[in-house]
Amino acid sequence: MTKPKLRIGLIGSGFMGKAHAFGYANAARVFDLPYELELHTLADVTEESAAKAAAALGFARATSDWRALVADPAIEVVNITAPNALHKPMALAAIAAGKHVYCEKPLASQARDAREMADAAEARGVKTQVGFNYLCNPMLALARAMIEAGELGEIRGYRGLHAEDYMADAGGPFTFRHDPIGGGALADIGSHALATAEYVMGPAAGRITRVMGDCVTMIGERRDGEGLRRVEVDDLGRAFLRFESGATGSVEGNWIATGRKMQHDFEVYGTKGALAFTQERFNELHFFSTDDRKGRQGFRRIEAAPEHAPYGLFCVAAGHQLGFNDLKAIEVAGYLDAVAGRRPEPFNFRAGLRIQTLVETIQESSRAGAWRDVPTL
Amino acid sequence: MTKPKLRIGLIGSGFMGKAHAFGYANAARVFDLPYELELHTLADVTEESAAKAAAALGFARATSDWRALVADPAIEVVNITAPNALHKPMALAAIAAGKHVYCEKPLASQARDAREMADAAEARGVKTQVGFNYLCNPMLALARAMIEAGELGEIRGYRGLHAEDYMADAGGPFTFRHDPIGGGALADIGSHALATAEYVMGPAAGRITRVMGDCVTMIGERRDGEGLRRVEVDDLGRAFLRFESGATGSVEGNWIATGRKMQHDFEVYGTKGALAFTQERFNELHFFSTDDRKGRQGFRRIEAAPEHAPYGLFCVAAGHQLGFNDLKAIEVAGYLDAVAGRRPEPFNFRAGLRIQTLVETIQESSRAGAWRDVPTL
Amino acid sequence: MTKPKLRIGLIGSGFMGKAHAFGYANAARVFDLPYELELHTLADVTEESAAKAAAALGFARATSDWRALVADPAIEVVNITAPNALHKPMALAAIAAGKHVYCEKPLASQARDAREMADAAEARGVKTQVGFNYLCNPMLALARAMIEAGELGEIRGYRGLHAEDYMADAGGPFTFRHDPIGGGALADIGSHALATAEYVMGPAAGRITRVMGDCVTMIGERRDGEGLRRVEVDDLGRAFLRFESGATGSVEGNWIATGRKMQHDFEVYGTKGALAFTQERFNELHFFSTDDRKGRQGFRRIEAAPEHAPYGLFCVAAGHQLGFNDLKAIEVAGYLDAVAGRRPEPFNFRAGLRIQTLVETIQESSRAGAWRDVPTL
Amino acid sequence: MTKPKLRIGLIGSGFMGKAHAFGYANAARVFDLPYELELHTLADVTEESAAKAAAALGFARATSDWRALVADPAIEVVNITAPNALHKPMALAAIAAGKHVYCEKPLASQARDAREMADAAEARGVKTQVGFNYLCNPMLALARAMIEAGELGEIRGYRGLHAEDYMADAGGPFTFRHDPIGGGALADIGSHALATAEYVMGPAAGRITRVMGDCVTMIGERRDGEGLRRVEVDDLGRAFLRFESGATGSVEGNWIATGRKMQHDFEVYGTKGALAFTQERFNELHFFSTDDRKGRQGFRRIEAAPEHAPYGLFCVAAGHQLGFNDLKAIEVAGYLDAVAGRRPEPFNFRAGLRIQTLVETIQESSRAGAWRDVPTL
Repeated sequence: MTKPKLRIGLIGSGFMGKAHAFGYANAARVFDLPYELELHTLADVTEESAAKAAAALGFARATSDWRALVADPAIEVVNITAPNALHKPMALAAIAAGKHVYCEKPLASQARDAREMADAAEARGVKTQVGFNYLCNPMLALARAMIEAGELGEIRGYRGLHAEDYMADAGGPFTFRHDPIGGGALADIGSHALATAEYVMGPAAGRITRVMGDCVTMIGERRDGEGLRRVEVDDLGRAFLRFESGATGSVEGNWIATGRKMQHDFEVYGTKGALAFTQERFNELHFFSTDDRKGRQGFRRIEAAPEHAPYGLFCVAAGHQLGFNDLKAIEVAGYLDAVAGRRPEPFNFRAGLRIQTLVETIQESSRAGAWRDVPTL
Repeated sequence: MTKPKLRIGLIGSGFMGKAHAFGYANAARVFDLPYELELHTLADVTEESAAKAAAALGFARATSDWRALVADPAIEVVNITAPNALHKPMALAAIAAGKHVYCEKPLASQARDAREMADAAEARGVKTQVGFNYLCNPMLALARAMIEAGELGEIRGYRGLHAEDYMADAGGPFTFRHDPIGGGALADIGSHALATAEYVMGPAAGRITRVMGDCVTMIGERRDGEGLRRVEVDDLGRAFLRFESGATGSVEGNWIATGRKMQHDFEVYGTKGALAFTQERFNELHFFSTDDRKGRQGFRRIEAAPEHAPYGLFCVAAGHQLGFNDLKAIEVAGYLDAVAGRRPEPFNFRAGLRIQTLVETIQESSRAGAWRDVPTL
Repeated sequence: MTKPKLRIGLIGSGFMGKAHAFGYANAARVFDLPYELELHTLADVTEESAAKAAAALGFARATSDWRALVADPAIEVVNITAPNALHKPMALAAIAAGKHVYCEKPLASQARDAREMADAAEARGVKTQVGFNYLCNPMLALARAMIEAGELGEIRGYRGLHAEDYMADAGGPFTFRHDPIGGGALADIGSHALATAEYVMGPAAGRITRVMGDCVTMIGERRDGEGLRRVEVDDLGRAFLRFESGATGSVEGNWIATGRKMQHDFEVYGTKGALAFTQERFNELHFFSTDDRKGRQGFRRIEAAPEHAPYGLFCVAAGHQLGFNDLKAIEVAGYLDAVAGRRPEPFNFRAGLRIQTLVETIQESSRAGAWRDVPTL
Repeated sequence: MTKPKLRIGLIGSGFMGKAHAFGYANAARVFDLPYELELHTLADVTEESAAKAAAALGFARATSDWRALVADPAIEVVNITAPNALHKPMALAAIAAGKHVYCEKPLASQARDAREMADAAEARGVKTQVGFNYLCNPMLALARAMIEAGELGEIRGYRGLHAEDYMADAGGPFTFRHDPIGGGALADIGSHALATAEYVMGPAAGRITRVMGDCVTMIGERRDGEGLRRVEVDDLGRAFLRFESGATGSVEGNWIATGRKMQHDFEVYGTKGALAFTQERFNELHFFSTDDRKGRQGFRRIEAAPEHAPYGLFCVAAGHQLGFNDLKAIEVAGYLDAVAGRRPEPFNFRAGLRIQTLVETIQESSRAGAWRDVPTL
């Protein structure tokens, strides 16, 4: 029984470009994918860089013209890992050409652009994916499943966080991440905290309906060439949250948290139990249950194991552990299943729009110093 | 060289009454106190309960009349561990009689009462103390000292928390802690988180100047006798914080955090380092320093040791660990030093007023859905 | 209902002398002791030091003549915290005078002396206690109770450890702890690891019946005045263990474990579960149970709580935590109950002899390079 | 600049076969390998299973005849992931055909066979590798480098462990792992603990020169078809260790440690510092240094980061973490560098023989109840 072919085009060959290439390769080895994959063409800025990357990453062809890639009738899926500002034109062009599109986060710098992209994809009927790969961790799926199954009882509260320190050095230069439109810690990594919050809480508490934001710029100017440039985006963004069910929570995105490398954490509290997670040890989930007998209760360190699909496809036994790149392979496999119609899209452009909308609502709330309803999409 | 005597009167003999008695006894053995202590009189509700408690706790006399205790010219320090509603009349009476007063938290249910008490004490020139004993942990003193000494560089951010689960059971009864005036999780334990925030951040970041509150009632009614009674106080209270220096932070008090017994945590981030602490393991402080060489950096688990005074008075070597009751002994010793004029009062009525003011400002901000300046005292 | 008086004499006023005094004082406040205690006389090397210590520690009388204290007919319990070499003559004199004796560890430098002391006490019918206070931790009692109740199934294996670093500095001087008779890491702190092993494993696995030792001297000479003195005792001692039931294990005592302050750890493995403990966080016990459902199993961090008697006498709620000095109060209370005939002696001279016998059998096994049966007492 | 081709043959397609295939694929993407790899032929038991696995794992050809694969002149490297009993004939045949051989652990069931294989490979001049992939963790390389650089001072002691629970169920069947020749916990996973001990300690302490073993069978018989079969191999094996430098240590391999999934731990103690590691959190290394100032010392949690090569080839920033399969890719890359002559073989057949020799010496010591010198190879 041979599988249908699926031809992939990749735009960009930086870190995320590589991560996509690994993701496809690993997914093909680990999962029973619905397709035989063909890494067809890689587009990069110059012919030379494209050729080199294509060879290294296993693509058969190379081009410096992403529009040619997008227009190539042989290609069925377009992966976009180019700079953020190009996501929109590339995605719209690919959608117009009828391609499925797998775009790195952020989908767009502004919600209105993300909406345009989501609308276009749905109108054209192509399958889309935005790269929020922390969601692909089997321990997050476990958390969500436990919440959905009622193992924590009724869900009351949430505390989420994504803190790192890559912008903690005030001597570091002004970069595209400091761009007044679309930049800042909340957008860059607070978006992960928001995505996790809705992913984990969703089945029991529904979506975030209202927010109160607190976005703070601590490093007011940064080196830009010879001079200094004013920074307007936040170095950390906090929010109070309301969920549909009445549950409440808080979230923080922070890129000046000295010493923190991957503090993507959450805690969920229900009437009968609680969960605690940190990406610093992302092969573990800590679970408290009031069902345990008195005197024997405590947070229990569940280690990732074959019981927590799809971990078992990567490692035959508990304790071996997944790495960051494995999460990307899981993301790829989920998306390809969606392309084949086996399941809904795991995190499509509308989901990307959703995150961008949350970010912007929090930013707007912070500016206003008042609570804001999150617009429905 | 004999020490002057200091005669102690204690009102109340419940958990905190016992804790005070232990505190005096332990402090006398551990510290070189400025006084020879005499546990003079214990007052409780009935003659019988007072007599029994006096015997058990080592007081020479017993009475069911707290006013008699307060008026007794022999007594120089009055300890108040009676129900919250009595704190004010007892303290004012004791102050009027010229006694030093050591009152359990909360100082009063409302800031205006706390202010009256602080004003009275200052006018009369007596020394006061409010029991915020988590502050007496040598590891918190270490954190404060490190911040003051600049070991973290310039301080940018703070995240604080006090979460427990003693009100998580919706079937539990309505109690005095649910009283619309002065009750709620923010007042009851969020107050600890606020006290720690200002204690630790103070030397570098100054006081909290503005807050945005989010106080939430999750369990809207509770059993009261045969019927149900509406609960108006918060089950959890959150706040965004601004400090004088421009540093920002957040804090949460939560008494429905299923599974949490003592999650009194904080993290402080500076330009050169960070600290992380949890009361769940309160003989440790975790310290990150950018001064460590690249590739060897990491959060370092400092264990309480004789270098961290006054730990060494309790245990001769690192790793032996203090317990909760030892913190109370440290509190007592600090207060007695203040009574003797050796040092400023560690946490006097004005400090208690300060905490009450922060709590009420956060509550008011939450009701208004808007930021509020914290009134100066 | 008045309690009978019990008059206490204390020999020594160093760290352990203080700890005994605290222990009595705290025990009296925390527990419903069978006696009204009277701290009668304290003996120390000089009249002056004795007087000063008596005042500080609450003893009514002072003496420089321990023989007078031991002979005083008013005194009913003699506490010995003098240097190790004096334990035997002091204890024998006290026993001869019909006193109950509470002696710090090690009971004696050699098993034959310990045996003489145990025999004497039993012949005279006095109650004895050796200070192995880590055993008084409610979490160890919990571990023992869980094992006894079969919560781990059949017990198969044990791994124990007591490692610190107080002798890690090769530049440190030769002390009495390096004395060829009775000295060394195995005797000094490995003894704690052995005591814990038999305490925890006892109900299910019985006693240690055979050992294979490995005692190592790493720092072969130390400063002694102007010169260097050869060190013959071990800096670390390891042993393989056999228990009566057929369970096996290992244990290590180590005083040159750089960085370790209180690594008194153990792990127990049974057919249905496991326990892990470290004194570094001694208010916790970690429990794995195969009864938990698949996919939800994991080591569970049980925090000390009122369910774990006698924790609740010290703290009203979980998470507050006991300190080192509280363990001593528990030890005192257990001993006084034994003196009153309410319960068997928790850790009497024969138990002290048992530990000394284990230590010496391991040392002898190490010298011989062969397994040795542990002599029955 | 084109790279020379290297053609790979793989025998076996179970878990380790897959791991090898992934390892090659990932290594090719992550590292700048000296070769262009060609996955040439896969051999499995039947034509059908071989064809299926070849397709899934990316091999161009398939065969049921491993002798044909070994004889194929096109193939330059033979990977052996067949059952242990076949390692020797396959490896010898491949060596005879002049192939480089990469064999899963254990190299052979008995040291004498391993020696024959190592001798044959060296005589023929082919490059060999045994799969001890835990050694490929950058955090272990860091530990070794720190020890070599003297960051811990003079090394004194070691404690190592590899404990899991996959044989804890006494109801589980008799398997090839229980084979009297070559089976048992010490051989199966204690071998990892031994490999890590010599890898980490080597630069400072040299090799293990003497051992005292303690091998224990706890589950004496297991189901075998309808009946029960006697188990002669150990369920756990312990050893005391002596290193060339005079440092000492201990090690344990244990497959009945209920609840443990990957307790591959070690601690190293030197005169100036210490390291602690657990494979349960293998992207961390904990480091204590006496160079830190007093009052600020503590074990520091170093998170894997680009400073710790080759981590940075997998993840651009600290905290992202490697997974188990990434360790295999590092193993492959190291081996291919050795094949190309760029570096010595990371863990060749002689190293595999070394581990087997250690295992057998410990077993023999255990049987004799006496210390044994480790034979030099």
